[in-house]
Amino acid sequence: MLLRIDHVGIACRSLEAAIERYTSVFGLAVVSQETNDEQGVREAMLATAGQSSYVQLLEPLGDDTPVGRFLARRGEGLHHVGYAVPDVVAALETYGGRGVRLIDERPRHGSMGASIAFLHPGDLGGVLTELVQPRAARETLCPGWGARLRAVEAALRLPLGHGLEPPPGMGARRTVKRPQTR
Amino acid sequence: MLLRIDHVGIACRSLEAAIERYTSVFGLAVVSQETNDEQGVREAMLATAGQSSYVQLLEPLGDDTPVGRFLARRGEGLHHVGYAVPDVVAALETYGGRGVRLIDERPRHGSMGASIAFLHPGDLGGVLTELVQPRAARETLCPGWGARLRAVEAALRLPLGHGLEPPPGMGARRTVKRPQTR
Repeated sequence: MLLRIDHVGIACRSLEAAIERYTSVFGLAVVSQETNDEQGVREAMLATAGQSSYVQLLEPLGDDTPVGRFLARRGEGLHHVGYAVPDVVAALETYGGRGVRLIDERPRHGSMGASIAFLHPGDLGGVLTELVQPRAARETLCPGWGARLRAVEAALRLPLGHGLEPPPGMGARRTVKRPQTR
Repeated sequence: MLLRIDHVGIACRSLEAAIERYTSVFGLAVVSQETNDEQGVREAMLATAGQSSYVQLLEPLGDDTPVGRFLARRGEGLHHVGYAVPDVVAALETYGGRGVRLIDERPRHGSMGASIAFLHPGDLGGVLTELVQPRAARETLCPGWGARLRAVEAALRLPLGHGLEPPPGMGARRTVKRPQTR
């Protein structure tokens, strides 16, 4: 289950110039900046106002890295899309079982403490696709609403399962049904 | 203000094949399918589980269309990213005022009744960027939560401004502040 678009990854030659551009034009806030040696990038995460999705700016650590080769081949631009999933291990099992080649058989460390894994673009219409299980997946789905709801529910002394059900994929108390592998 | 990533646009050679792939692998639901003669595409919108973001699949109506030329030059893959904004006219004014070239000086009709406009990739790190004002911007930001909150608040007979404030960019009663043009 893909909960939402978590981020778009944008390849750039200069992280500083890209940050300057995206913050000054759109007013986006840099919420994280890190170097990921394993992936060969310096990167920044910029949050949208709703704080549920991000612009990820990626500068390669060298020419002989995935993003470095992407820049040489295609220039600056959209590099990949990341979707939030409730459970990245289960998602890999499901999508792998449906014939999508996995770039990562097991999750690895992504931005801001997330567990991530990449799927092969050759099986997804040319789109390099990342699965992202945020550090606290349930709480980040609709940030802020959960706390507000719990405060109101506590004030009402509503019991669990009081009949006002959360919408699909958004409930903090909802059991996640894993889609069956076909 | 960019509220969230509304969608990613993916260029494909066969809309039917791309729909089959994205629905069978990810279980995404097709929520809209239309032909946009003005943009020269047949397209489908597939909703993520949270229903706050979409995968937009785009098949060109001919080789001599923007998406047709994109396919000839780069093959299938990520074509653009669309961000939800509260007011597309105000957003065009703001971002245009900050030096971003506007592909559309005025909004035009997009998928599912949205008002949309494109910004030039040359000013945004090679990323073709779409601004999307959904048909009911406030209600679609976190679908379902608003109705649930209002039901609980009505049951509690809480007055407006009861102190449990919605997070930035998510409040149904919040006045949208237009960012100042610099």
